[in-house]
Amino acid sequence: MMFWLLGPKLALIREQFLFSFDAAEELKEAIAKKNHKLVYLYNPNLVDEIWKGSRPMPPNKPIRVHELKYAGVDVASKLSFLRSELLDTCSSAIIVSMLDEIAWLLNLRGSDVPHSPVMYAYLIVEVDGAKLFVDNSKVTQEVLNHLENAGVELKPYDTILSEVESLAAKGAELWFDTSSVNAAIVNTYKSACDRHFEIHASDRKGNLHNGSNDQSWGPSGVYRASPISLAKAVKNHAELEGMRNSHLRDAAALAQFWVWLEEEVDKEVKLTEVDVADKLLEFRSKQAGFIDTSFDTISGSGANGAIIHYKPEPESCSVVDPKKLFLLDSGAQYVDGTTDVTRTVHFGEPTAREKECFTRVLQGHIALDEAVFPENTPGFVLDAFARSSLWKIGLDYRHGTGHGVGAALNVHEAMNQGTMKIMLLAFGLRISFVLKRLIPRNRYGGIEYLGFEKLTYVPIQTKLVDLSLLSVAEVDWLNNYHAQVWEKVSPLLDGSASEWLWNNTRPLVKHYELSVHTTYNISCW
Amino acid sequence: MMFWLLGPKLALIREQFLFSFDAAEELKEAIAKKNHKLVYLYNPNLVDEIWKGSRPMPPNKPIRVHELKYAGVDVASKLSFLRSELLDTCSSAIIVSMLDEIAWLLNLRGSDVPHSPVMYAYLIVEVDGAKLFVDNSKVTQEVLNHLENAGVELKPYDTILSEVESLAAKGAELWFDTSSVNAAIVNTYKSACDRHFEIHASDRKGNLHNGSNDQSWGPSGVYRASPISLAKAVKNHAELEGMRNSHLRDAAALAQFWVWLEEEVDKEVKLTEVDVADKLLEFRSKQAGFIDTSFDTISGSGANGAIIHYKPEPESCSVVDPKKLFLLDSGAQYVDGTTDVTRTVHFGEPTAREKECFTRVLQGHIALDEAVFPENTPGFVLDAFARSSLWKIGLDYRHGTGHGVGAALNVHEAMNQGTMKIMLLAFGLRISFVLKRLIPRNRYGGIEYLGFEKLTYVPIQTKLVDLSLLSVAEVDWLNNYHAQVWEKVSPLLDGSASEWLWNNTRPLVKHYELSVHTTYNISCW
Repeated sequence: MMFWLLGPKLALIREQFLFSFDAAEELKEAIAKKNHKLVYLYNPNLVDEIWKGSRPMPPNKPIRVHELKYAGVDVASKLSFLRSELLDTCSSAIIVSMLDEIAWLLNLRGSDVPHSPVMYAYLIVEVDGAKLFVDNSKVTQEVLNHLENAGVELKPYDTILSEVESLAAKGAELWFDTSSVNAAIVNTYKSACDRHFEIHASDRKGNLHNGSNDQSWGPSGVYRASPISLAKAVKNHAELEGMRNSHLRDAAALAQFWVWLEEEVDKEVKLTEVDVADKLLEFRSKQAGFIDTSFDTISGSGANGAIIHYKPEPESCSVVDPKKLFLLDSGAQYVDGTTDVTRTVHFGEPTAREKECFTRVLQGHIALDEAVFPENTPGFVLDAFARSSLWKIGLDYRHGTGHGVGAALNVHEAMNQGTMKIMLLAFGLRISFVLKRLIPRNRYGGIEYLGFEKLTYVPIQTKLVDLSLLSVAEVDWLNNYHAQVWEKVSPLLDGSASEWLWNNTRPLVKHYELSVHTTYNISCW
Repeated sequence: MMFWLLGPKLALIREQFLFSFDAAEELKEAIAKKNHKLVYLYNPNLVDEIWKGSRPMPPNKPIRVHELKYAGVDVASKLSFLRSELLDTCSSAIIVSMLDEIAWLLNLRGSDVPHSPVMYAYLIVEVDGAKLFVDNSKVTQEVLNHLENAGVELKPYDTILSEVESLAAKGAELWFDTSSVNAAIVNTYKSACDRHFEIHASDRKGNLHNGSNDQSWGPSGVYRASPISLAKAVKNHAELEGMRNSHLRDAAALAQFWVWLEEEVDKEVKLTEVDVADKLLEFRSKQAGFIDTSFDTISGSGANGAIIHYKPEPESCSVVDPKKLFLLDSGAQYVDGTTDVTRTVHFGEPTAREKECFTRVLQGHIALDEAVFPENTPGFVLDAFARSSLWKIGLDYRHGTGHGVGAALNVHEAMNQGTMKIMLLAFGLRISFVLKRLIPRNRYGGIEYLGFEKLTYVPIQTKLVDLSLLSVAEVDWLNNYHAQVWEKVSPLLDGSASEWLWNNTRPLVKHYELSVHTTYNISCW
């Protein structure tokens, strides 16, 4: 939709605001091999020509302040950190275009993108100032005061390019993360720098006989990964506390939901997957601080449960089948945190095969939860812990094992020692983890050792567990997890939901028969 | 010793027979950055100038035929496989200079290199012939017949370069694995090709007005990894059988050795680490088919045990201390296989710390032995299984986890789904494994799943095991392993060694106290 190939070996045309600079460059190189050329069209924008008057207005719901008690660090401190990064890299300013980075940095939240609490904006942070480019109509007086306090100036959203141009003209070295900043901004800066260089070069030429020693050729930009993305991934204490609390309220809503669903299934009510998602939203929206779902609920019965990011549609979705596995992958945006929880259940009798697969996914989960590993261990090494039990019977899953989760922000974000949702989708059992620094008894190599803290406290259906496959330690893990679920979530529940939680957090018992009962005297060794 | 830097910014000079082409190129590039130049010196060789008359003669012990019952595949079949590789890559011939590749390909073994049953030689395999460049005095009548049968011609060792030159002149496309073939050979070929090209180019120039369309610019070489290295790594049935059998005889020698060592320590005899290595050699050399040790025995008491590849010397080595851990890392070359076994023991009472570390290394071992993983899983992923238990208490080890082992060949070789010795050195417990294809119940993705088969059957000292750390499954693994050790090795032993083996293969018993004894009715889930 964003580009066209016009005739043989003709030009490719696209909207350079919608592609990151890196993506546009990649496209350019790829089509150059076929003798096509990438041409940026700015005026007229061909997509606008198609929309004409029917294009919806941009969203303009008010921006809100993300309270300090949830954000943990104030805007001034975050800007100060960012400015020290600018000094370290000899940049005059950084252009931020990732919406979750802007929201995180300014402790603001918006409602412009479904499921993600962000607002359309650009941000330029200079060593001695900051400018937020945003539609004024979204800015309340409270937000205005908040920004003024932090020394952030407001600018109209569509003046970003002219600002970039004037920064280039002033000789500013701008920092871009070209994997996220759009092509329009980077190209505008580059052209402006070139013009700056030409003027400067002719100046210098004119001055040569004056013996001028000016070696400055104007700015050229600093192209590095965003320091905000990395800082945002490492959650502070307040953010972690918000994540923990929102997960418990979310778990309470889920308990109420499961009670309802089990009753409906018992009464043999025909429920579509959409009915299920709607009801779940109803329970979640009653929880304190609820804002939105964090992604479209994935509720899949039977085979649909195995489709990654499956979304049921009213006209095509199947009916919840009490004889099949039922997967529910859902989450919410709360004022203090973001959740993403998956559970797979069976309303009737699971087959031995279903139980074995579920149990092996659970074992992968337990292995990851209990893993300790040296800092800088690459993610795919941990992956082996998650997959090991499935591999034993020649099974695997065709997707990554985890992704980062924002703190009251996007449900998917870059993962760097931050909050991490572990995904084991074979039979959809996921628990969100927080990566934590541990203080082990030893510190071989003088480095940090890391491990996980659980965030999700929703019962795992024990009916799906094949006890014969679990070790004593694994049974202990499950029982301990369920004990914690009861302890943490039951205070938020009463009535049938509380009863349901009690019933579904009872410990399992595994009896072992030891094959050898004689104790031997071990000889000289 | 092989190169000199002569004055500032002057030439680096070296012996190009002793460096692989890749290593020489790397050196060349590295010193070029400092404005130094690599100059190949051939005549005079400066090292020879230093040696003068005192240089020892090259070894000239006879080459022997590696019997087909051990090799599993005859030379004709191996050459035929290699020739199909030549055709696939459009090469006329391959130059083989890795001594273990030549030995494997020709089913020959030599005695030129301590601990490695190989002979100094070069081999050229052409589509329609093969030439072995070797010192004639090492070739017995039996070897001569063996080579004649396989269509391999004998050539003097020092004619390799002139042969390469004449192949280049004939326009032969030679296949080199530049990571192993020496710089002298590759450079000789390249120069000869250049000369060939010059002659050819002037011919073509003369023919231009004749309308000649000849586009051939002469040979330029095929630079690819050696197909022999890969083929050799995957052991055939006869090789595996030889490896299994030689490991059992080796285990018998080790049992006899441990009986002796324990008695000496009991009698408070002062034994140096060299005494220990000598006695072990005595027991091994009594085993059928014994040829040599496969590397210098590493016998380290106390702190020395933690030094990788520590070798005790008579004048400096310490005395076996009954109050410290004792590590023994040793192996042998047998006519049918190569062994490499490590065990760590304590002659007195190990500390809790020693037991915990040993037990965690053992757990890594068990995890690897039981691992199943999809083909093409990189080695460092398996590494995490081996280290996981140590990581849990902030420990690790600073070396790789495994290496390939040759079949009646070098104790270290490239690892590619072949025989693999798993090294976990923290407290020196190693078991050699063979990587095997498994037939799991499922084959997700239609790929192979792999696992290990044990080769080493030497008791693990249970006195060093902290049972409280082991799971039931791990205790079962240990008991099962010891049952197999008894079953496989006891037929080769009698008297005190048999008694020792019995005592040291008795099962351990772990009693579990289950914290919860009530069985609950799991509700509706």
